[in-house]
Amino acid sequence: MGKQIRIGIAGYGNLGRGVEAAIAKNPDMTLVGIFTRRAPESLTPLFANTPVHPIAALPDFKDAIDVLILCGGSKDDLPQQGPEMAALFNLVDSFDTHARIPEYFESVDAPARAAGKTALISIGWDPGLFSINRLYGEALLPDGATYTFWGKGLSQGHSDAIRRVPGVKAGVQYTIPSPEAIEQVRSGARPELSTRQKHTRECHVVLAEGADAVAVEQAIVSMPNYFADYDTRVHFISEETLRREHDRMPHGGFVIRSGSTSETHNQVIEYSLQLDSNPEFTASVLVAYARAGYRLSQQGQIGAKTAFDVAPGLLSIKTPEQLRAELL
Amino acid sequence: MGKQIRIGIAGYGNLGRGVEAAIAKNPDMTLVGIFTRRAPESLTPLFANTPVHPIAALPDFKDAIDVLILCGGSKDDLPQQGPEMAALFNLVDSFDTHARIPEYFESVDAPARAAGKTALISIGWDPGLFSINRLYGEALLPDGATYTFWGKGLSQGHSDAIRRVPGVKAGVQYTIPSPEAIEQVRSGARPELSTRQKHTRECHVVLAEGADAVAVEQAIVSMPNYFADYDTRVHFISEETLRREHDRMPHGGFVIRSGSTSETHNQVIEYSLQLDSNPEFTASVLVAYARAGYRLSQQGQIGAKTAFDVAPGLLSIKTPEQLRAELL
Repeated sequence: MGKQIRIGIAGYGNLGRGVEAAIAKNPDMTLVGIFTRRAPESLTPLFANTPVHPIAALPDFKDAIDVLILCGGSKDDLPQQGPEMAALFNLVDSFDTHARIPEYFESVDAPARAAGKTALISIGWDPGLFSINRLYGEALLPDGATYTFWGKGLSQGHSDAIRRVPGVKAGVQYTIPSPEAIEQVRSGARPELSTRQKHTRECHVVLAEGADAVAVEQAIVSMPNYFADYDTRVHFISEETLRREHDRMPHGGFVIRSGSTSETHNQVIEYSLQLDSNPEFTASVLVAYARAGYRLSQQGQIGAKTAFDVAPGLLSIKTPEQLRAELL
Repeated sequence: MGKQIRIGIAGYGNLGRGVEAAIAKNPDMTLVGIFTRRAPESLTPLFANTPVHPIAALPDFKDAIDVLILCGGSKDDLPQQGPEMAALFNLVDSFDTHARIPEYFESVDAPARAAGKTALISIGWDPGLFSINRLYGEALLPDGATYTFWGKGLSQGHSDAIRRVPGVKAGVQYTIPSPEAIEQVRSGARPELSTRQKHTRECHVVLAEGADAVAVEQAIVSMPNYFADYDTRVHFISEETLRREHDRMPHGGFVIRSGSTSETHNQVIEYSLQLDSNPEFTASVLVAYARAGYRLSQQGQIGAKTAFDVAPGLLSIKTPEQLRAELL
């Protein structure tokens, strides 16, 4: 085994915790420490021997960390942290506001280039693995159509929207891909699917004391942007059921490319994920890409990059010779 | 649109024909010509204006072809053609004898490096797309197990084996993945599966006049290596049914990675192909990788490479900016 890759974690929510777990499963990596905005002593890492430092101490670790994994949110944390940290570290993040990726890319690219650092942005499963599968599908079958379905999965944004409805004490929302729509796509038919035809939404809601169930249900299903365009079902449950049956964060989905190579021959490529824990899986993806980021930086490939720029071989702990002999 | 990528096709069977069709679907490519061992005038290309040349003329096209796609077989053609052509052209091939890939890689790498050429070997779906999905699965979920299932698909090797049985006039063999085994794997159970549990084999056989059906069936199902380790079903059909219902070359399969990110959370990644025409799809893959090979050669990345070495973005006709804005 060569030199260990020294990793830092910036931010310690569900994602940071998942990264700490994932590093332990990759024997070529060492965790230098967790860097947090909270008081370091208030935080309980997964492993008792993981060092915890205030985030302000990060610049002192400039030479001690090979790749910094940013585990903050895309709304408030990354737009500031990404460009700032790219001037100090090779980094990997999971910036996932699809519409703002080009702008975020530029904001990280400039400081990374100036500092000779490599920054892998928007890594995870969507954006990330789903993105590369949309790309592979399109490139391999240029005459075709691509479909992305999400779920069954807990949507954080939609769960938050439910909880803002008056009369709702607590609740979660699951996005469910339509089995009929998926079957149609798999058949090679290339259907045009409306928003309503692709996904349904299921809400599990705990009512506040004295709240009117009919009014709450109506407020949810008619909510613009979030629910009005979907077939939405609302189930009322007890607080105890919510705690017992809805404490996981499952997610996943499908990227399907259906295309023709000649008039009579249709070809279907399907990629799917079925995840018990969305943050742990995303974390696992970030860690594999941290290995790739380290290798790209060793090769002098500096600047902002995305999953599109990473050759599969760079993700593996194995040597190119091993990969050819064992996996090709 | 920048400069067109100029492609040559060496060998014109089902695969070469598929490459000719695929190039027409990629507007950044031009087909310089088909190079054949047959008499050029005896060959009918898909498009009447496709030039056809004797294969011996290839060296004259050294400066007229950016990437040569080798469409010969792995047993007899490529072991000789690959090293020979890598000294003259950037190339892409579909060498698919898994056990001999390391040796073939070396035999192509040396002449390619000496000539400053880029050679993408073992491109297609297995080896190729399935290989990179085995790699992604292992790298993203290091604590897990990978399963490859093939089919439903026509197996050329097994069809040939049937046709060698005395009393068989004609026949085809389909490899069928076991739905029960796939469901078990998808459940996250990580079963240990025997050869017999993973696939079954279905044979559609036309008997020679006066042949003994029972003896033929027995000879097939007990054939070592090919059928003895599988549950094999033999159906006797008429010559007309064979022609009418079994003239396609469907194939496909599944690569499934099942892994854990913590004690309680299992994650499943699945990649699958459902192909009406195996050779046309393989051809389509070769053509997308020809684009990548051209770009790698422009970057000075010379020598033998595999799908493991190709970043997804290199396959697409779109610019990196477009890809980030549209597909990430």
